[in-house]
Amino acid sequence: MNLKILGCHSATPNENKHTSSQLLDVKGNVFLIDCGEGTQIQLRKSKVKFSRIQHIFISHLHGDHFYGLIGLISTFRLLGRTSPLTIYGPKGIKEIITLQLKLAKSWTDYELNFKELEATIPESLFEDENIKVSTLPLNHRVYTNGFLFTTKPNKNKINSDAIAGLDLKPFHFAQLKNGFSIQLDSGNIIENKDLTLPPDQPKKYAYCSDTAYNEALIEEIKEVDLLYHESTFLEQHKELAKKTKHSTAKEAATLAKKAAVKQLMLGHYSNRYADKNDFLKEASIIFDNVILSEDFKSITI
Amino acid sequence: MNLKILGCHSATPNENKHTSSQLLDVKGNVFLIDCGEGTQIQLRKSKVKFSRIQHIFISHLHGDHFYGLIGLISTFRLLGRTSPLTIYGPKGIKEIITLQLKLAKSWTDYELNFKELEATIPESLFEDENIKVSTLPLNHRVYTNGFLFTTKPNKNKINSDAIAGLDLKPFHFAQLKNGFSIQLDSGNIIENKDLTLPPDQPKKYAYCSDTAYNEALIEEIKEVDLLYHESTFLEQHKELAKKTKHSTAKEAATLAKKAAVKQLMLGHYSNRYADKNDFLKEASIIFDNVILSEDFKSITI
Repeated sequence: MNLKILGCHSATPNENKHTSSQLLDVKGNVFLIDCGEGTQIQLRKSKVKFSRIQHIFISHLHGDHFYGLIGLISTFRLLGRTSPLTIYGPKGIKEIITLQLKLAKSWTDYELNFKELEATIPESLFEDENIKVSTLPLNHRVYTNGFLFTTKPNKNKINSDAIAGLDLKPFHFAQLKNGFSIQLDSGNIIENKDLTLPPDQPKKYAYCSDTAYNEALIEEIKEVDLLYHESTFLEQHKELAKKTKHSTAKEAATLAKKAAVKQLMLGHYSNRYADKNDFLKEASIIFDNVILSEDFKSITI
Repeated sequence: MNLKILGCHSATPNENKHTSSQLLDVKGNVFLIDCGEGTQIQLRKSKVKFSRIQHIFISHLHGDHFYGLIGLISTFRLLGRTSPLTIYGPKGIKEIITLQLKLAKSWTDYELNFKELEATIPESLFEDENIKVSTLPLNHRVYTNGFLFTTKPNKNKINSDAIAGLDLKPFHFAQLKNGFSIQLDSGNIIENKDLTLPPDQPKKYAYCSDTAYNEALIEEIKEVDLLYHESTFLEQHKELAKKTKHSTAKEAATLAKKAAVKQLMLGHYSNRYADKNDFLKEASIIFDNVILSEDFKSITI
């Protein structure tokens, strides 16, 4: 999985601070997570092929997470998109989008599907041969979900040292990758484990924004490879975090530690702080492996 | 009047091409005309004080003219705005905005008024001591208005040479500016015309986007100081202009000539053309005083 941050700031965008949006590339299938105003411009800068985005996940209906969606949907139409697009987001999102398309007399030529969310327990949203996506119900001022992306178990890897000298046919490779033992032309049977290496472990990415500190998440995000958790505030404003149902950097780190995640990425920074490194410092006291999200930062999970 | 172009491109925005939005500053009162996605970022770059915008005029409900409106309204709230804001736009705009504010549980703390437009003949929208604003019904695929901004007749200017040596009180100046003659302490009466110069002529700015070539406009925009008229296409694509109810540069120039406007500004360029100077060349064959709009261009009317 490759994650690219398109925007990681809260509330209002400006020239150098873009609001929430992320691209998750899983073997060429690109998922867009949240879509703040101007996301389509960030997407163009990131050179992603627009048609590869077939699923958009919207956490909640605050503007810094979805005001760019209607523009992106319209741009897809203007670019002549033909492939279907599915939007996953809170109940109400379909009405917001379709009302605007109707009044503009600009219905999409491509298939536009909505899966509106209302559940307050985790639910499965999407699954294909490479990945499954499910919700992570969050605790914010309006109905909000995070999203958990889990890759499917990979196939065995061929041990190139072990097969040296063997006259293997293509079907032998397929059998080995799928866990079967093989029979050679000579009649000899070779066990799968003698010719393969264990597959790469499935990877997990959890996106949690926006939310108050919420221990109910721990079980769901246990040991994920990367946790993006909002840290709108620093501890010096923890009362404000509580009041607005956001988290501090310390709280994000505390949750990361309790869930034993492998890495924590902070984001959704309030514009009141001049130096993002203060978030890193505060979180690093609690949890070892912390990184900061930054617009256009790209990391491999 | 000072006009600043925030965006002048059609359809889809990208890093260097912003969709329709203009700021018209009339003696410190700032009017926003259209509000494409990302307008709030353009506004920040232009250093305008957000609270000075009290009236926003939306021509029509195509995304490149209003998808930035909801974000701007939200940002005003987050910045602690207290002064009222009035939105003038096609029927439906109130539902689009209020639906999103309702679902976000983020109603504005300031007074937000809507004046929804349905008339197909010109109507007066706003008037104060400096300016009046009225609609210019346009001919597009959806209900669309342009806007005509007309400054009020100015007051007389004091002739500083003529008053030299006279012992005038503040009330004398007020009387002179308002066209009255004055009586000095000595009892002498001096006629207004002897101490004043004629006021500057009222100025007119007409904004016409989006529209097909439409001679019904000529009477309304007769002799305006500046006409902004869309030129989405060049003549080589005039069939496309006709089909989509847009104009070519030649058509914009023809209208400017027939209305005897003082200056024509082209804009709303299709992204298909590499060189904007082709619009200027095509229009200049028909009409003498043509300029191109460009993002961040500023001109005094």
